[in-house]
Amino acid sequence: MKNGLIHIYTGDGKGKTTAAVGLAVRARGRAKRVLFSQFMKAVTGGEIAMLEKLQVRILSFKEVLSPYFHPGADLGALREKALGALEQLSVIMTGYDLVVLDEFMHLVRHGLIMEDEALAFLKRKPAAVEIVLTGRDAPGPLIEAADYVTEMKAIKHPLNKGIKAREGIEF
Amino acid sequence: MKNGLIHIYTGDGKGKTTAAVGLAVRARGRAKRVLFSQFMKAVTGGEIAMLEKLQVRILSFKEVLSPYFHPGADLGALREKALGALEQLSVIMTGYDLVVLDEFMHLVRHGLIMEDEALAFLKRKPAAVEIVLTGRDAPGPLIEAADYVTEMKAIKHPLNKGIKAREGIEF
Repeated sequence: MKNGLIHIYTGDGKGKTTAAVGLAVRARGRAKRVLFSQFMKAVTGGEIAMLEKLQVRILSFKEVLSPYFHPGADLGALREKALGALEQLSVIMTGYDLVVLDEFMHLVRHGLIMEDEALAFLKRKPAAVEIVLTGRDAPGPLIEAADYVTEMKAIKHPLNKGIKAREGIEF
Repeated sequence: MKNGLIHIYTGDGKGKTTAAVGLAVRARGRAKRVLFSQFMKAVTGGEIAMLEKLQVRILSFKEVLSPYFHPGADLGALREKALGALEQLSVIMTGYDLVVLDEFMHLVRHGLIMEDEALAFLKRKPAAVEIVLTGRDAPGPLIEAADYVTEMKAIKHPLNKGIKAREGIEF
């Protein structure tokens, strides 16, 4: 894969993380080396063990807490951890063809990563690496920097009808 | 999974099939029984062998050709094959928790399945089965019948820039 592109899956609809999972699976089917990293996921989804079975490397940054879900957390300390995670990813992504950063937009939206830091991270990416960023509310400058942007738009969402998130479907 | 819902992934953006693949993977991670059926895919995507590795059952209806890509094909014969495929799915889906019909909307859009036939198929589904339909241009009555609808909207698409579909990413 020369000239790896930057993908963004954003919007309020279902399918951002699962589309990234599906792309990881597809790439493995073509013997690509895939790294799947996650932020802001306290509960590991059903997909993670399956991705490991397919030799997708998983990196779960559980120490990078969301200030949205942990309002009392020390933002400065969290920012340091988030920037450390990006640093780590920058170093190891050279060994992969496809790198997913699941819920990356959450980091940006809640001030753990500043927009210019996110842009600098993308600029540093090795030319051959394909990157996938997911999360609601992708900011304009990131959309500008990306090649491949899909908005997952909720037309109908059962959570609005009071149906709770279900194991194996929503997580 | 009681009260299986009906999902639709539609729109012109990337991520409809991959979101269905990701959902299949997630459901397998929770030991759900998953059937993944495909229409209109002459070339098997990289994901299919991987799904089989995870014990997802694959059903590829390659004999149901697209009249869009095969303009000389006999529409009546194709319709018969498409309806036969739905009949077969109706029978075997009782043995699954999650059933994907990839590119189902293509069947409807190109006249292989009429809207009322599609609705009758959905009405027949066992209550416990969760169904996922993908494809562009989902018609209103199908959206009406579904519980969970996401529009994948192309905000930026590299194919518009003349970049060709690439193995491991687009298929």
